[in-house]
Amino acid sequence: MTDISILGTGNMAKALATRALAAGRSLQILARDEAKAAALAAELGAGVTSATLTEAPAGRLVIAALPFDAIVEYATTQGAALSGKVLVDLSNPVDFSTFDALTVPADSSVAQLIAAASAAPVVKAFNTTFAGPLTAGEGYGAPLDVFVAADDAEAAALVSAFIADAGLRPLPVGGLHHARELEGMQLLVMAMQVNEALPAFQWGTSLKVLG
Amino acid sequence: MTDISILGTGNMAKALATRALAAGRSLQILARDEAKAAALAAELGAGVTSATLTEAPAGRLVIAALPFDAIVEYATTQGAALSGKVLVDLSNPVDFSTFDALTVPADSSVAQLIAAASAAPVVKAFNTTFAGPLTAGEGYGAPLDVFVAADDAEAAALVSAFIADAGLRPLPVGGLHHARELEGMQLLVMAMQVNEALPAFQWGTSLKVLG
Repeated sequence: MTDISILGTGNMAKALATRALAAGRSLQILARDEAKAAALAAELGAGVTSATLTEAPAGRLVIAALPFDAIVEYATTQGAALSGKVLVDLSNPVDFSTFDALTVPADSSVAQLIAAASAAPVVKAFNTTFAGPLTAGEGYGAPLDVFVAADDAEAAALVSAFIADAGLRPLPVGGLHHARELEGMQLLVMAMQVNEALPAFQWGTSLKVLG
Repeated sequence: MTDISILGTGNMAKALATRALAAGRSLQILARDEAKAAALAAELGAGVTSATLTEAPAGRLVIAALPFDAIVEYATTQGAALSGKVLVDLSNPVDFSTFDALTVPADSSVAQLIAAASAAPVVKAFNTTFAGPLTAGEGYGAPLDVFVAADDAEAAALVSAFIADAGLRPLPVGGLHHARELEGMQLLVMAMQVNEALPAFQWGTSLKVLG
């Protein structure tokens, strides 16, 4: 049995894999390129398996560490293979040429677009945690906050339990429509990383509710 | 000469007055009720003056610590009295009956609505700082972050200089259209304060970019 399937082999996929193993979860890595998935699985060790994105994911929790357009495509094409599972979206639909706008309509979010295309309930989480602090499990001496937006209570609970077991703090923000505000705030945080007036911010910050 | 005029006598007005005096700024308090303005001015001491909201504000920096609908009305009716000044909006257009939605259109913000009604450039700032930490000037051992959104660079610089002199950290997030994301994130932070699943959050948290 596999607990978690992670889609992708980039920095966020690696960071989430590190947290999943720290939480004692069994793990599968899926990627478009089977060799890349197998290489990351081997690097992670500890019985981590691998597959291609076109195969049905083995885990109940499917965490998509892919660009936002690729996740919408995945949710659409996987269809029934996602039935009975929970899909976690951590993407940010940012216009990376300007860092000044989101690329989804003002009354929507990429999480809601994915939910409309998905047979599985969608949970927005990990979109405000950069890969460095997430790999470490903490940022600047504090446990990372992971904001969670979801319409499905059981799906949200499954994700929040993983977050807590991984040594992080889950912070429920309400229904999936609040993914809009999470994606919007992360647009601002990302813009700060490329703002020359803020040289201390170099993609390693963490957004935290102190209290 | 008066540096700063604060509109209102509530908790946020008092907190900002405390910061203004800590920054060495001269200060005026304005309120609909002249007696309340005078009482707060006397309580603050140190040469703080008072006036009613219908009088022209004396400070170059006018900080509106009023409910969001009252600020739009103020900007509309004050007209020429605000010319040459900078208007700071710290309000959050939250539906306080549900804490689940903003009351402005999805592609707008209360700051932009105020700017459309105002003869002065508008700066969004202090909308994510609760009164308690703002009065103290810090939250949980860290200097408060004050996110600043503005289209007018000179206005933004004036506000950021005040924030820094008050012992806080100004974080520029870009143009005034980004007030939308700031108001949206604070909706989520406020919803957490009334969420019984988060008993540690009691209107004293602070939103921080650690790094």
